[in-house]
Amino acid sequence: MVLVVQKYGGSSMADAKRIKNVARRIAQAKDKGERVVVVVSAMGDTTDELIKLAYQISEQPGDRELDVLLSTGEIVSSTLLAMALRAMGYEAISLSGAQAGIRTDATYRRAQILKVEAKRVVKELERGNIVIVAGFQGITDEMDITTLGRGGSDTTAVALAASLGAEVCQIYTDVDGVYTADPHLIPEAQKLTEIGYEEMLELASYGAKVVHPRAVELGELFNIPILVASSFTDSSGTLIHGGVSMEVRNKVRSIAQDLDVAKITVVGVPDRPGIAASIFQPLATAGISIDTIVQNASIDNITDLTFTVAKSQLAKAMRLVEPIAKSIGARECVSDSKLGKVSIIGTGMQNTPGYAARMFGALSEQGINIQLITTSEIRITCIIDESRVEDAVRALHRVFEMEIGE
Amino acid sequence: MVLVVQKYGGSSMADAKRIKNVARRIAQAKDKGERVVVVVSAMGDTTDELIKLAYQISEQPGDRELDVLLSTGEIVSSTLLAMALRAMGYEAISLSGAQAGIRTDATYRRAQILKVEAKRVVKELERGNIVIVAGFQGITDEMDITTLGRGGSDTTAVALAASLGAEVCQIYTDVDGVYTADPHLIPEAQKLTEIGYEEMLELASYGAKVVHPRAVELGELFNIPILVASSFTDSSGTLIHGGVSMEVRNKVRSIAQDLDVAKITVVGVPDRPGIAASIFQPLATAGISIDTIVQNASIDNITDLTFTVAKSQLAKAMRLVEPIAKSIGARECVSDSKLGKVSIIGTGMQNTPGYAARMFGALSEQGINIQLITTSEIRITCIIDESRVEDAVRALHRVFEMEIGE
Repeated sequence: MVLVVQKYGGSSMADAKRIKNVARRIAQAKDKGERVVVVVSAMGDTTDELIKLAYQISEQPGDRELDVLLSTGEIVSSTLLAMALRAMGYEAISLSGAQAGIRTDATYRRAQILKVEAKRVVKELERGNIVIVAGFQGITDEMDITTLGRGGSDTTAVALAASLGAEVCQIYTDVDGVYTADPHLIPEAQKLTEIGYEEMLELASYGAKVVHPRAVELGELFNIPILVASSFTDSSGTLIHGGVSMEVRNKVRSIAQDLDVAKITVVGVPDRPGIAASIFQPLATAGISIDTIVQNASIDNITDLTFTVAKSQLAKAMRLVEPIAKSIGARECVSDSKLGKVSIIGTGMQNTPGYAARMFGALSEQGINIQLITTSEIRITCIIDESRVEDAVRALHRVFEMEIGE
Repeated sequence: MVLVVQKYGGSSMADAKRIKNVARRIAQAKDKGERVVVVVSAMGDTTDELIKLAYQISEQPGDRELDVLLSTGEIVSSTLLAMALRAMGYEAISLSGAQAGIRTDATYRRAQILKVEAKRVVKELERGNIVIVAGFQGITDEMDITTLGRGGSDTTAVALAASLGAEVCQIYTDVDGVYTADPHLIPEAQKLTEIGYEEMLELASYGAKVVHPRAVELGELFNIPILVASSFTDSSGTLIHGGVSMEVRNKVRSIAQDLDVAKITVVGVPDRPGIAASIFQPLATAGISIDTIVQNASIDNITDLTFTVAKSQLAKAMRLVEPIAKSIGARECVSDSKLGKVSIIGTGMQNTPGYAARMFGALSEQGINIQLITTSEIRITCIIDESRVEDAVRALHRVFEMEIGE
């Protein structure tokens, strides 16, 4: 009998009506003869409300206590979904992360799953139950509750799918799949039937809205196909997997953009070993995430070092970097907070000439100035003025003929 | 070092401000050098709201799932209280019922505590923590969550106190102790400094509003003194214990009343063995709680059987009893739904003559007709017209000179 793991996010579980709708979808899978394990997030804004409550009590609630508090959100939604299924005449049981055997380290707020001891899940499946597991949470060896941090429920679902040898992990959310570009921006964007794990990872912030990169990485590691589809419609969704057909590998698969980009350039840096570390170590300690880093080739042992951060972190980053720049003898620090990022993504692009040239040409035709360029095996990214990001995505979508779909 | 167990109810934990107030009270105990274990109920109306949510999903939510759902209410309040204490600079940790080792049978919704495995609680106390335990919940051998039903958090507190060998179990609530009569009814009622376990149990519904009989029984069994006091004031409360002084034993300690009384009389019952069972068995099966039962001495092998039920259950009880009465050859069934109950309570009353006579005399002086009389070792109860209950309590309070207090 085929085993599937399904995951439903907070917006799919927002109220009694939606929970009943989710129950009907699960029932369809059960009626097809599948064994079903379901992972759920907390209802709607529950997690945010619990966090708000905690901060009414204490400015520093403490990570262990916050994790216990937050874990209740997913437990509530798991019990309600089990009730809804039972009301429809299906055998169903809810399990907490602890009961489902999600064993983690003790890093509260962002615990890593160490292993899944799914004995209880297997036993309940054998009893004929649909098993509803509270996502986003686990338990330490000390029997303390942890939460998994960002993408936690997606990760729970893929980890369970790997541990149980599920055929597929189905992530149901409020979008109906992965598109050739963000459909909010490009209405003519096409839904992809399939995409490779690595391509999905390169979709970065756009992709992360669909399914968290951490879950995609885990899927790749255990070779679990991940279907992303809408919980509100019956459209077929996008399958993220490793076996993407030969023919679709060598082409641009998707365009991604990001409007939350600020740039800092340290100008006139003496090119000595240890300089990069002296700049980036304090930023890391302060919890500032660095995205792109570009260091130009040096001329007369002087170079410029440019990196990007989220806009909200620009001021803090500048306060840290300016004294460092002075101390290492750099000329000055300049920043620009009105930037955006546009990327083309497709496996094997770098092995095929011409993609970068076509991308730069398309931007140039639109009169868009490229401020920075970075590339990976399967991605080419340009940092441009934020006001031109939309034009850029539209132009690239056209040039790479993505309207035609796959 | 003295160990105390404190319990705070839902109204004491209703919002962030009240939780901080509770934290300050706990801190006072800690500052006195006491080791403190705290049991909490869910915040305010949380439990009712969760039940409402469940019934939006399903008319029959299922007891196992309901228990998991409801258990989250106490977990939320336990973490918030731990956060509040930590914000004040105290070491504190929250534990679920499962983590605190509250092992129960698998009777969902009204599980019985089988044992308390308090290893983790002891370990956290040794680490210097104030230990906050989610009340009302436990865990089965199968690692399934249960709830303890009515009086669950009071019972958790007394069970932990017994298991840890605590000096006292302090129940903090929204009343400041046990009174000689319900202070809402008799403003001149006096607060008792102390009361025996059995006297407290006989206070029945009035007493149950203060601390649940189940917890009092457990306290008696393990000889744990239970202090009942207000979480909102600093008044001294009432100590429920076994060692009530000789002098106060032989007197009326408290007057109790209950307005929720309906009476059914099966008239002209042939006095044969098995008749009582044939009437009460179907009522028990239907979940109808019988309070007082009175069967008069029979004349010519014919007797009348009278019993009382809650008013809300009268119609259902009559529907069940009428056909039975007919089948056993009774003459008729009559009911009266406008009744109340008034009791005088005091250890050793029946060994001392005159209490009953004084009670009946006091009611007679007020022109109050007594419909039924029942007694126990330490209680005399009269069923009277509901409209006269208040007059009766006032008269008895005066006659037994309870305004003088002890």
